[in-house]
Amino acid sequence: MARWSEAKLMDYRLYLVTDDKIANNELYDIVRSGVKGGVTIVQLREKTADGQLFYEKAKILQSILKPLDIPLIINDRVDIALAVGAAGVHVGQDDLPCAVVRKIVPDDMVVGISVSNVEEAKLAQEQGANYVGIGSVFPTTSKSDADLLAPGMLEEIIAAIDIPAVAIGGIQLENIKMLKNRGLAGVSVVSAISKSKNPEKSARDLLQLFL
Amino acid sequence: MARWSEAKLMDYRLYLVTDDKIANNELYDIVRSGVKGGVTIVQLREKTADGQLFYEKAKILQSILKPLDIPLIINDRVDIALAVGAAGVHVGQDDLPCAVVRKIVPDDMVVGISVSNVEEAKLAQEQGANYVGIGSVFPTTSKSDADLLAPGMLEEIIAAIDIPAVAIGGIQLENIKMLKNRGLAGVSVVSAISKSKNPEKSARDLLQLFL
Repeated sequence: MARWSEAKLMDYRLYLVTDDKIANNELYDIVRSGVKGGVTIVQLREKTADGQLFYEKAKILQSILKPLDIPLIINDRVDIALAVGAAGVHVGQDDLPCAVVRKIVPDDMVVGISVSNVEEAKLAQEQGANYVGIGSVFPTTSKSDADLLAPGMLEEIIAAIDIPAVAIGGIQLENIKMLKNRGLAGVSVVSAISKSKNPEKSARDLLQLFL
Repeated sequence: MARWSEAKLMDYRLYLVTDDKIANNELYDIVRSGVKGGVTIVQLREKTADGQLFYEKAKILQSILKPLDIPLIINDRVDIALAVGAAGVHVGQDDLPCAVVRKIVPDDMVVGISVSNVEEAKLAQEQGANYVGIGSVFPTTSKSDADLLAPGMLEEIIAAIDIPAVAIGGIQLENIKMLKNRGLAGVSVVSAISKSKNPEKSARDLLQLFL
């Protein structure tokens, strides 16, 4: 059995990725509220913070999420994932390669990777990724460098791999229904929860519309 | 015996920190030439590169340095140090805390930290740092956020700790003699070698003036 298959099964249904443009205290409130509404997994994404600040935020999120048994995934910085004992790490195509990450993390740490075509998705699976994030499925403003998926590509990728797939990019209450019954393990959102006036209600509504 | 004391003894005498504003191929030539001239240890410092690029550069440097038995130190990114099996990692005061780094790296990996006062230096030693980088000893243009040390501070720090100390910041052929016989394990340079027309000769001259 492949070593990465030991990574525990995750509930990817409603995957919240944090918005690094939001102030810290507000961020923690949003996460707490989102989880109350049904968020099943949380990724801390920091694109500008120094290591220490990133680590401090990860520690606080871990202290909020661990008692609730909600997995914390760290974006990009494998060292910070190791330092806080996160459930997983998520890398992009410009970050440390998946095969390298797999070598330096414990067998039970989940490794996820962003993909936008079949080739990247197959390679991710080969290299031991536990899940892929596929996107952008819709236009987004949360991630400036995200390109929109080619038409039909979401289905092609899902058909090409066996590991769980999560859709990401511009997913909102208005369009989430389009992702229902497509073979996705979950949907990943940023602003649909982070910019909501009621993150708990938005999480509940998103989950209800997706399932 | 403290676990970090197991980290192997390094030769810190002429410690080259790479300049991330220099093109890759030129960088490797500078490092090769510097080592020929007497550089004893090399730190790869990347402040803007994505994880993948940083990793690729680290791998190439490791392939150059390892056969020559010259230790490679990775700046900030502990995960990249782990990924390439670097001899060590160097963190700043805004990076992952030293005590945290110590926990996620093997016992024989060297951990260094930048300090600029006695309190930081003592804490670094307590937390398992193998060496400290003290600076800036002179005004520098290589690191925009580097503050000049207070007068007498270099001596105070060296007297306060037992681990090796390396001076950094604006060290050039013209001023390196001022650092001789101060109890330093070595001197760390960026532009004195990287911006030299003859890095090999500059390294040789620097070492001769320091020793």
